[in-house]
Amino acid sequence: MPSKVVGILGGGQLGRMLAASASLLNIKVIVLDVGVDAPAKQIVASPSHIDGSFRDKEKILELASQVDVLTVEIEHVDVEALETVQKSYPNVSIHPTPSTIRLIQDKYLQKEYLSKCGCPLGPFQAIEATPEGITYAAKELGLPLMLKSRTMAYDGRGNHVLRSTDSQSIVTAIESLGSGSRKLYAEKWVPFVKELAVMVVRGLDGTVSSYPAVETIHRDNICHIVWAPFRLRNIDEDPTLPTKAEQVAKEAIKKAFEGAGVFGVEMFLLENGEILINEIAPRPHNSGHYTIEACESSQYDNHIRAILGLPLGSTRLKVGAAGMLNILGSSNDVASKSTTSSSSLTFSDDTLVNELTHIALRTPGASPHLYGKGQSRKGRKMGHVTIVGSSSAEVRERMSPLLTCLAELEGGSQNDQHSSSINPHLLGYSHPHPLISIIMGSDSDLPTMLPAAQILAKHFPSIPFEVTLVSAHRTPLRLMNFARTAAARGVQVIIAGAGGAAHLPGMVASSTGVPVVGVPVDSKSVSGGGGGLGGVDAMWSILQMPRGIPVATVAINNSTNAALLAVRIVSAGQPQLVSQMEEYLRTLGKEVESKVDVMNDLGWAQYRK
Amino acid sequence: MPSKVVGILGGGQLGRMLAASASLLNIKVIVLDVGVDAPAKQIVASPSHIDGSFRDKEKILELASQVDVLTVEIEHVDVEALETVQKSYPNVSIHPTPSTIRLIQDKYLQKEYLSKCGCPLGPFQAIEATPEGITYAAKELGLPLMLKSRTMAYDGRGNHVLRSTDSQSIVTAIESLGSGSRKLYAEKWVPFVKELAVMVVRGLDGTVSSYPAVETIHRDNICHIVWAPFRLRNIDEDPTLPTKAEQVAKEAIKKAFEGAGVFGVEMFLLENGEILINEIAPRPHNSGHYTIEACESSQYDNHIRAILGLPLGSTRLKVGAAGMLNILGSSNDVASKSTTSSSSLTFSDDTLVNELTHIALRTPGASPHLYGKGQSRKGRKMGHVTIVGSSSAEVRERMSPLLTCLAELEGGSQNDQHSSSINPHLLGYSHPHPLISIIMGSDSDLPTMLPAAQILAKHFPSIPFEVTLVSAHRTPLRLMNFARTAAARGVQVIIAGAGGAAHLPGMVASSTGVPVVGVPVDSKSVSGGGGGLGGVDAMWSILQMPRGIPVATVAINNSTNAALLAVRIVSAGQPQLVSQMEEYLRTLGKEVESKVDVMNDLGWAQYRK
Repeated sequence: MPSKVVGILGGGQLGRMLAASASLLNIKVIVLDVGVDAPAKQIVASPSHIDGSFRDKEKILELASQVDVLTVEIEHVDVEALETVQKSYPNVSIHPTPSTIRLIQDKYLQKEYLSKCGCPLGPFQAIEATPEGITYAAKELGLPLMLKSRTMAYDGRGNHVLRSTDSQSIVTAIESLGSGSRKLYAEKWVPFVKELAVMVVRGLDGTVSSYPAVETIHRDNICHIVWAPFRLRNIDEDPTLPTKAEQVAKEAIKKAFEGAGVFGVEMFLLENGEILINEIAPRPHNSGHYTIEACESSQYDNHIRAILGLPLGSTRLKVGAAGMLNILGSSNDVASKSTTSSSSLTFSDDTLVNELTHIALRTPGASPHLYGKGQSRKGRKMGHVTIVGSSSAEVRERMSPLLTCLAELEGGSQNDQHSSSINPHLLGYSHPHPLISIIMGSDSDLPTMLPAAQILAKHFPSIPFEVTLVSAHRTPLRLMNFARTAAARGVQVIIAGAGGAAHLPGMVASSTGVPVVGVPVDSKSVSGGGGGLGGVDAMWSILQMPRGIPVATVAINNSTNAALLAVRIVSAGQPQLVSQMEEYLRTLGKEVESKVDVMNDLGWAQYRK
Repeated sequence: MPSKVVGILGGGQLGRMLAASASLLNIKVIVLDVGVDAPAKQIVASPSHIDGSFRDKEKILELASQVDVLTVEIEHVDVEALETVQKSYPNVSIHPTPSTIRLIQDKYLQKEYLSKCGCPLGPFQAIEATPEGITYAAKELGLPLMLKSRTMAYDGRGNHVLRSTDSQSIVTAIESLGSGSRKLYAEKWVPFVKELAVMVVRGLDGTVSSYPAVETIHRDNICHIVWAPFRLRNIDEDPTLPTKAEQVAKEAIKKAFEGAGVFGVEMFLLENGEILINEIAPRPHNSGHYTIEACESSQYDNHIRAILGLPLGSTRLKVGAAGMLNILGSSNDVASKSTTSSSSLTFSDDTLVNELTHIALRTPGASPHLYGKGQSRKGRKMGHVTIVGSSSAEVRERMSPLLTCLAELEGGSQNDQHSSSINPHLLGYSHPHPLISIIMGSDSDLPTMLPAAQILAKHFPSIPFEVTLVSAHRTPLRLMNFARTAAARGVQVIIAGAGGAAHLPGMVASSTGVPVVGVPVDSKSVSGGGGGLGGVDAMWSILQMPRGIPVATVAINNSTNAALLAVRIVSAGQPQLVSQMEEYLRTLGKEVESKVDVMNDLGWAQYRK
């Protein structure tokens, strides 16, 4: 029999998913929240669940008397009660520790403390909730200015962006932030280019490990989409960014917080590559939902393991990529729109929630989660969908119908950059999330390299690729950036065509761990090229790489074979491609066989190619 | 609000995992089983669970009155009651249909029906439970003979292997099979080389799809281990076997059964490549547990989707490979052995169950599942562990400590062929589950190709490889078999070394979709080789492949680079290898830099290599 019982303060969706992980290990869970059917209580049969608020001291003590470990799914709990538990029930461990929760509850104190610990943060200051206080802060930190409640602020509640210091704007700001009843602080506007998040887990023994860095997209300050892993989009970016984000997050948890469990670290990525910490949550986090389907152990598994003193599970991504879309309650006008669903099963009175769930059920690789919350309200987190796939491109393509539905049901006003479902290959453009990158030193090589793009687009339309110019001799820095960012951009094979001295493939291979396929180009027609050598010059240059740095060389000018080789290489991560390639080989065979028939019919003397 | 309620007959582990899938969609579940804390009831809070037997007609009717859909987690239910439900509650759908359950309950009728439907089966016949009946069957079908109860037989109960027709053996057989109280039938002993299983799912609209074929290993007729996907071990096997197994399973379900839901199809693979159906279960199955962590939608997700008329989820494997180990209750003598676990948390009074759980928690990629069954008994299914990994080799390595523990706690008598944890590379042998295959036409090429194996073993010990001989000209059939089975054996890259005419790499590439790296060998020292051409002969032969069939050619004799290229290729499925390769590139750089220092110290005139 399991010898430990876990008490969870809060019975929302995070508590629900924690309880699901606990039940895998047959760990008993008791939930404290108002009502008998809070989301977490629905999926754990326990006569001992407590009906009451996680801010109610008496109820917290009642819970403590029945459990071995206390944890939270929300940080807005009664910390004093937890401190009493520490004294009255010394055998009950509490994770995160009450002191950590107290610190996190006041966002200003949290920032001040993180800053003292040496964590990277943007400028911020405490302010009075008065016109003078706000005006002063705006002078100090500039406009726009982020005004925040120090406490009870989450999912956009308690945040206000001040764009002007005219008196009307300031009055509105004060009103929206509790009319002076709450303590405020101001943050200098951080001109971020992306928001990142990293889930960190610390074991009872102090071991700290992190999940991969992910990109988060917020709408109205609420988490909207998560893309995992975080991929660079641009060869000018720092290729170590994903690792850096993980390091920043791990360091913050190591330096600043005690206690076991998972921590959600939200960060800003600035244009110059700087990473600043935005906020830290001492519990499972919306940006880590994707770990249930996408990682070897989920954030919920690891939180349960950590607080029970068990070994931490692997945080490795087990799929090529994943995406997460929150399903939020919609407003009434959306709910009244007609639905396209043909199924008789209704998951929610909220049309949007119902429609998104049905679309998710039709989407390969999608796992819809509905939290069992009673009433849908605009902006309420009703569920989420996680999508897994073998590549970022596949995940985005799978996500596309969901985003299209969202945009349509919300009136088409939302011009969501993430919802485009057109395959750019059809228009002859590069894919933004390529697995194969086709590069060449000069546009004069394009006619030779074009068949590579063409055969991919025609026979293997599911494989995203890009085509661009990178010259070893004329853009050596671009070459280095290209090579060093390839893996972080998700590229799995590079095809490099080059003629003459043909340094491109080998130089790229020397700066990346990604496999490079070299196409020797016969550059006789190119001015300054090695006219008359028939590509043999380039061939030797590409082929005879020194021990240590391989280039996969194909026949002179045979970019078709380079593309087919690239497809075979990608199949190491997508086994279904092997059978597609074998099917392609059969079509080659059939072509020859049909010519055999013609030759038999016509006779060899009459046969013309 | 969800508009449908699912009733499950049976509250064991299969019901528990079905309920967990239902809760993701917020589908209400009511469980019928004896007791208030059956495994499935523990994880679904519902005041309406019914305390009673799934063979109790009244209780079944009571359940039917509260649900929209009825399903089963065990086929030994009261079918008459279900038929009454069909009449009395025409709006309640029942999946599988009562007629399917009735057919499955009697294994003899099941076989007879499958045989009529044209499914491949071994010989069998109904027999009298008398010495005469058994002797007659033994004469007809030969020895050893498989005797089975027609009904209520599962997990080895109701099976008896008759090895002799002496009177004592026959008496023992009759006694062990209910002493004449049960109907029996006999199956001709099937000399299978492997057992396979395929989970098939049919939607309400008739759509049928299957999960990948898996290999199952039984002990005492109880499922012990599942390896997914099923991999060939031998180049002489039929490369289409995995697909054939899936086809046989899908055809059986399409032809023989009605109703929606998942079906577990257990099969025998014979030495000659023939596949025979053993048994079919009309419900989630032990051999499909692995789908929870390893597939895009699990068998439980898909059963719930199917019976509710929702679209089926993708059955694709989302990880490289997976393994499943059942955790069975142990006998008392095992339970009394001392444990090695240092953790204070006890998961079970049964030492074996507790130890295996603790080891699983320490194993990366392992997800332990404990079912919450009260008392452990020898052979009782108490839980299972699923292990995922990027390759079959990684999964087996991760599984190894669990199998070792099992063997030790069971007294070391179990010489389990699956528990070997020694990496064969250390001894200079091929790995049985290679990702990279190094082949060459002749042992005279071995000195040239050896550096490939050496650099893999030294710098990339986590990548399993094999080294063997395949000659294009002397073993053309072996070449074809090798190439055609490569993908089905799990090989992700082939390195082929060849000199002179050097047909090996190109001919291999023409019969597989797996990428082939060609190493031109300078065969001057080989008798009959192209002496004097310095490997250029082989180089042209390997490089100048026709459009359609690429070979990745590396420098003459540079098998080191072929191996390093193979590592880069494998990294398409194991992104962590890219950083390992980049680390390797840095060591190459450091080597040069240290020489720079020496040259500076000594001066260039004094410098000696």
